[in-house]
Amino acid sequence: MAKVPPVKGTRDFYPEQMNVRNWIFDGWRSVSRRNGFVEYDSPIFEYLQLYTQKSGEEIAGQLFSLTDRGGRDLAIRPETTPALARMVNQKINSLARPIKWFSISRLCRAERPQKGRLREFFQWNIDIIGSDSEYADADCIYTAVDYLRSVGLTSGDIVVKISSRSMLAELLKSQGFAEDQLATVYTLLDKRPKLPEDTFTALAEEQIPDTQLREKLMQIAGIATIDELMAFAPDSVRDSVEPLERVFSLLDNMGVGEYCTFDINIVRGLAYYTGIVFEIFDRNAQLRAVGGGGRYDNLLAGMGGQQVAATGFGMGDVVLEILLQEKNIIPQIQSGIDVFVIEAAPNSESEAKLLQIVNALRSKGITAVFDYRRVGLGKQLKQASTLKARFALIVGEETLEQERITLKNMNQGSQIEIPLTDFLTQPERYLS
Amino acid sequence: MAKVPPVKGTRDFYPEQMNVRNWIFDGWRSVSRRNGFVEYDSPIFEYLQLYTQKSGEEIAGQLFSLTDRGGRDLAIRPETTPALARMVNQKINSLARPIKWFSISRLCRAERPQKGRLREFFQWNIDIIGSDSEYADADCIYTAVDYLRSVGLTSGDIVVKISSRSMLAELLKSQGFAEDQLATVYTLLDKRPKLPEDTFTALAEEQIPDTQLREKLMQIAGIATIDELMAFAPDSVRDSVEPLERVFSLLDNMGVGEYCTFDINIVRGLAYYTGIVFEIFDRNAQLRAVGGGGRYDNLLAGMGGQQVAATGFGMGDVVLEILLQEKNIIPQIQSGIDVFVIEAAPNSESEAKLLQIVNALRSKGITAVFDYRRVGLGKQLKQASTLKARFALIVGEETLEQERITLKNMNQGSQIEIPLTDFLTQPERYLS
Repeated sequence: MAKVPPVKGTRDFYPEQMNVRNWIFDGWRSVSRRNGFVEYDSPIFEYLQLYTQKSGEEIAGQLFSLTDRGGRDLAIRPETTPALARMVNQKINSLARPIKWFSISRLCRAERPQKGRLREFFQWNIDIIGSDSEYADADCIYTAVDYLRSVGLTSGDIVVKISSRSMLAELLKSQGFAEDQLATVYTLLDKRPKLPEDTFTALAEEQIPDTQLREKLMQIAGIATIDELMAFAPDSVRDSVEPLERVFSLLDNMGVGEYCTFDINIVRGLAYYTGIVFEIFDRNAQLRAVGGGGRYDNLLAGMGGQQVAATGFGMGDVVLEILLQEKNIIPQIQSGIDVFVIEAAPNSESEAKLLQIVNALRSKGITAVFDYRRVGLGKQLKQASTLKARFALIVGEETLEQERITLKNMNQGSQIEIPLTDFLTQPERYLS
Repeated sequence: MAKVPPVKGTRDFYPEQMNVRNWIFDGWRSVSRRNGFVEYDSPIFEYLQLYTQKSGEEIAGQLFSLTDRGGRDLAIRPETTPALARMVNQKINSLARPIKWFSISRLCRAERPQKGRLREFFQWNIDIIGSDSEYADADCIYTAVDYLRSVGLTSGDIVVKISSRSMLAELLKSQGFAEDQLATVYTLLDKRPKLPEDTFTALAEEQIPDTQLREKLMQIAGIATIDELMAFAPDSVRDSVEPLERVFSLLDNMGVGEYCTFDINIVRGLAYYTGIVFEIFDRNAQLRAVGGGGRYDNLLAGMGGQQVAATGFGMGDVVLEILLQEKNIIPQIQSGIDVFVIEAAPNSESEAKLLQIVNALRSKGITAVFDYRRVGLGKQLKQASTLKARFALIVGEETLEQERITLKNMNQGSQIEIPLTDFLTQPERYLS
């Protein structure tokens, strides 16, 4: 029978890769918790409609959809926010606000696999629901930086580019864009850094045929600082710049200002953002975004719920891991075997003793294994060494006759003989 | 816009449920590790063929399958073993044996949702590949019991029912069953405890029309102990009973014998089992199986790999959680907020101080939050209380003027005033 291969764009996590994934997830989890977020999760599939109604074209075009036996149209989740909004809407009246939730979700998108982009990936999501304060926006951005900083990435390695959709909307309208052109402009700006210059120009000419408007857009896209923005913006727009300034001021006071910069070209691809938006990049701009997010004050109401303010972000594991590998940040993970228990001369009496010892050690939380092959002492010691066990415990005649064991330190090669009861009472003492 | 509901048979994990799930997963993970298993994971979807070729009819009929844009037939994973076999086959020559791997996998099956059975669930999987020894079978069963025992389930709560498919095959053949009838008999026996008596009888009459054979089967199904089995079995079958006796002897020596019993009716639903098989039940037999597994020595070769011996088990979270809830075993999980940082009189100077303190505490791994509403002291204290924060840290005039803070123990109501530097140098000292 022919071997069935894995599907392109998915990953097999062998123990070595799984160690890395667990190390990333553990970091996400502990940083989420210290920032006051609690974990939730949603199902891997939902009704297709949950994703087609609000996420926008990009996501809808990348869905893995299926029809079940009951004729229901379902989709594997491509992002976390719609399910989060569904869950919060279901219990909005019993949840204390602000709701500070996080999740580490497995997501699937039917994209062409390429560097930093796979068909299956994991995403850390942080959301604050029930607060329209810039505190909440700043706390989200802070939490993202807090994780990146905690693993050793400096402001020389990464940058958070921040802007505001509501400000951009006001600015575009002040320059003559109509309300119904805004979505087109957002998509255009979002795609800009991912497209070659001439492809972008062609697309812009197609989407905004008016030359004057197009020039205005390019002028706006060239605004590099908040000072330039304030100089360019008519009075009517200045109010909408204030929240942006406030967020920068809060981030400064929280000690992560050096990671953050204004970038008017950040709009985010998803349709539902309404206010502050941001994306995180490597400083060398060699990789796709490490993460991004923003305010989405209308999504919950748009999905049949109450009007509740919300802000959040997502950070995928794929680009992050490339960056962490490049920076040589991922730690070597050691073998987990504490004790390899060995029979000096296999017989039924010493086997029983070995099994009792294995049981006693494991019950105390110590990783203890033994050789399934029933081979001689030399081969068992070799296996202990192959598996990088830290200690070998030898059950020999002295164990059966005097309840004494030999404990060999596999790294140092030294060994001691000690009473079995002493060892089992305080194994940590001997295994340090 | 109408609210989109969740799909029936899936679960929303709100923080409270997520705490329980994390507690179960943490237990699975730590018990796996102390028994010498390392974690792996496979993609959430695979080529459909991976599941249709070897798992047997029951699984194939429960697949969530889909066709992607490239016309590939895919399926969401309904079990872990085929992907495990695929992964091991891919790297068989570079993996040290025995391979002791575990995973905690999200699985989906298109079943009718009912008590203990959902369309989406999680399963703990333990597998030992590359050993044909009964040590490996015993170590799998031990590991399953080790987890259940570790959370407090006694041999009065649960039972592992163990049998052997190879023994049963020999026994059936010795009583006149043909090789090509065995699969039918396995399915029949597997379904027996799940069907009403008369439904089972009707099914048996349909599947085994020969009255004499059917009576033989019922006689075999009535064998209650290994002694009875040895008395019933002709000499030719006795050799195949030995591995079973050996497993029980090993489990006795490992200290979990009282959890284990022989049950000739255990055959497992999946097609690929070849030797020792087992299922774990609550002693009251009120619930579906908590878990089960067995030896599958031909699966890897059957999937295009080498002939490599293998044994393993799976334990789902759904029935397990019902059992743990019934036994009142799941611990209450406490609020995670260590410090709620408060401004006595909100102004820009004390806000900056508050944000610095929040940053300093979080950087030390302490869960610190603050009020996004910019309200008065009383409301902030009330919020700290609502969120069950352990301490409130008050930034007041004395903080700005003398670098001193007030720390209030929210449970005891007591408060102390201390230098900020002392607190930030050793926060654990004040938060215990």
